[in-house]
Amino acid sequence: MNVAIVGVGLIGGSIAITLKEKKIAAKIVGVDKSEINLKKALQMGLIDEGATLADAIGKCEIILLTIPVDAIMSLLPSLLDQVTSQVIVDMGSTKERILQAIANHPKRGRVVAAHPMAGTEYSGPEAAIPNLFTGKMMVYVDATNSDEDAFEAVDAITEQLEMHTTFMNAREHDVHTAYVSHISHITSFALALTVLEKEKSQGRIFELAGSGFESTVRLAKSSPDMWTPIFKQNRENVLEVLQEHIKQLQHVHDVLSNEDYETFYKLIKKSNKIRRILK
Amino acid sequence: MNVAIVGVGLIGGSIAITLKEKKIAAKIVGVDKSEINLKKALQMGLIDEGATLADAIGKCEIILLTIPVDAIMSLLPSLLDQVTSQVIVDMGSTKERILQAIANHPKRGRVVAAHPMAGTEYSGPEAAIPNLFTGKMMVYVDATNSDEDAFEAVDAITEQLEMHTTFMNAREHDVHTAYVSHISHITSFALALTVLEKEKSQGRIFELAGSGFESTVRLAKSSPDMWTPIFKQNRENVLEVLQEHIKQLQHVHDVLSNEDYETFYKLIKKSNKIRRILK
Repeated sequence: MNVAIVGVGLIGGSIAITLKEKKIAAKIVGVDKSEINLKKALQMGLIDEGATLADAIGKCEIILLTIPVDAIMSLLPSLLDQVTSQVIVDMGSTKERILQAIANHPKRGRVVAAHPMAGTEYSGPEAAIPNLFTGKMMVYVDATNSDEDAFEAVDAITEQLEMHTTFMNAREHDVHTAYVSHISHITSFALALTVLEKEKSQGRIFELAGSGFESTVRLAKSSPDMWTPIFKQNRENVLEVLQEHIKQLQHVHDVLSNEDYETFYKLIKKSNKIRRILK
Repeated sequence: MNVAIVGVGLIGGSIAITLKEKKIAAKIVGVDKSEINLKKALQMGLIDEGATLADAIGKCEIILLTIPVDAIMSLLPSLLDQVTSQVIVDMGSTKERILQAIANHPKRGRVVAAHPMAGTEYSGPEAAIPNLFTGKMMVYVDATNSDEDAFEAVDAITEQLEMHTTFMNAREHDVHTAYVSHISHITSFALALTVLEKEKSQGRIFELAGSGFESTVRLAKSSPDMWTPIFKQNRENVLEVLQEHIKQLQHVHDVLSNEDYETFYKLIKKSNKIRRILK
């Protein structure tokens, strides 16, 4: 089996490492609009060869799309026109619009929509790491719309990546990721902007930054090329959670402003329930 | 040299581990309003004996205060009345009000105000870990108000903890910690509250929570007993940074709402400058 990886960055590259390690793919073909990334991926041994998308379609049974979600959305319909028995895996972080774009395509069944809930704040082939997916969640979206053989082929890879699996429809997926992934990035971006602004008048402000600060702002290192399209495609859900988050912050602000420390204490205590969720 | 640790929790307990390991203290005397914590600390070997504060003052040369900041503020003046040549170390996370409370005390010089910029979201003696302070920053506040011998005694411990050091006045300290520590906790509390609220109508919401989400909300596990007094004492600075943070979030919201993706991209790009600060 030959596997094409379209977008040899953090996600595509990290999958490539496992595919190689476990000898799942006879050949891994890399496709990337950046010649530099393709060269790096070759040098790093992530891929066996670089190719154009058309070439890759001709020689691969599985085509993984690990590119920004706007690129997936514009590429997917025409890509689907070109495949026959191949399987295309949409690994994007948003699903509703992407899947709408191919909803009525006669070959819709060849697409498996899967979102690996794993990543780091880094990007590019040099960000690829082994075991990025181990123990993490693979979300299959609208799986009943995929052909059974296509789904099974992708699920075999998911198993080799040692991931847990869950199933959702596209609407659920996009709401859930807005709440437990996309908003985290927005709060990090905004917090970084807040403190970077303060640095201008208080030069030493970062001197005291410890692990707590780092934890809440590290996502602000994330790539705008990857994330702007995600927010564009999941705009309504993200706006909803952002409004709610601002409301919560405003409430915390007002409680503190009113010196109502009893309520303040209760708010922290209530937020402690997150212990139930996090390890 | 005997050392008293008043408040045998995460910070006090972790200091105790190093003091023991490096044989700096002949004896470590624990003081804690919680009998249970005192017993635990004894069982864990963090302290050599438990004592009342009065007893501890009588037998120790150095008294470390690692209790919530409201407790430090109310305890410090009377504690200072009772010491002669001993050194009291205020290790609280806020400084301005605490140091105001003893500004005119004739024995002010016996107090060294130091804030170790290290911690985790856990509390209590069982949260104590080795090397919590290694490579982290110890902030000395208004150090010129401490007697030289008192400062040197504390700095010798800081050196054994393998910490970097920096110096600030109380006002600077409280502004800086509001921006790079206290606000991070507030954003985590509010984010946890936002998502916990959503869970009520979307039961599976946490199923997709990955490392990014965990990173931005883990501080929401922090103790309300420790944190409510910090926000109380640093209220004005925290309100200022909170207002600025809400303004930034509102700006991000408006840009997304207006579908101005060029500005959105630029905001992420600008926040990426945090890479300069974080490792």
